[in-house]
Amino acid sequence: MDIKECLLCTHDGGEILAANAFLRIIAPEEPEFPGLIRVVWNAHLGEMTDLPAQYRSTLMQVVCQVEQLIRDVLHPHKVNLASFGNFVPHLHWHIIPRWEDDSYFPESIWGNKLREISEDLLLERHQQAQDLYETIRGFDFKSKYNA
Amino acid sequence: MDIKECLLCTHDGGEILAANAFLRIIAPEEPEFPGLIRVVWNAHLGEMTDLPAQYRSTLMQVVCQVEQLIRDVLHPHKVNLASFGNFVPHLHWHIIPRWEDDSYFPESIWGNKLREISEDLLLERHQQAQDLYETIRGFDFKSKYNA
Repeated sequence: MDIKECLLCTHDGGEILAANAFLRIIAPEEPEFPGLIRVVWNAHLGEMTDLPAQYRSTLMQVVCQVEQLIRDVLHPHKVNLASFGNFVPHLHWHIIPRWEDDSYFPESIWGNKLREISEDLLLERHQQAQDLYETIRGFDFKSKYNA
Repeated sequence: MDIKECLLCTHDGGEILAANAFLRIIAPEEPEFPGLIRVVWNAHLGEMTDLPAQYRSTLMQVVCQVEQLIRDVLHPHKVNLASFGNFVPHLHWHIIPRWEDDSYFPESIWGNKLREISEDLLLERHQQAQDLYETIRGFDFKSKYNA
């Protein structure tokens, strides 16, 4: 893929909550999935094993730190982690809080929708996601996880 | 969940290709997904952040090593990595070779099936998966990645 055509080379992919020279932590527009966070490697690489081992480690430390902040703020029943890149072959991780009453649980969010969630509950979780974003903005990723 | 009821506490989850005191690398029965490998943490934990950071690092190094062996042997178009645990909340990673002509690409393997793959091609890929299993069995995970 020409990087001029890569969505994650030409666009941030969401609101940048934190960033360093290597990666960015973004809050994407995901109306159905409040609190879903992505960690995007800035350079155009497809796979974890395209990265030198040192950078893989830094990236996963950041992914796990985001998981911890999601757990601390949102207290979901489960957290899902995934790196696919089938549509956009540019290394990025999905960190997804899951609740037993969310629309897809226990299916993956890429699976079949199993139920409707009430608008009130969805709104409440999007409001809590704002607290998560604030917590991520306030966390010192830069000094802790610069590769 | 009572660990007596956990499928990954009571069952290996597939053929064990390699193992150390902390984790096992398994070839599960996945007729539709030749070459899919799982790395299962032996102790019953739900999330990456339930593990001390040192063990997270070991686990991800093993996951990435499996990804590298999958790429070396199978040359897929993409590799997908995922840790969900919604059905079985016991820490395990899916490492999934993907081809542009597989039945679900570019959807995730938990998404909608998009096409049928020919029996001949599926058989060929299952035969190549046997080479992958042999490569994983022969790789020295124990001395390289013991935590």
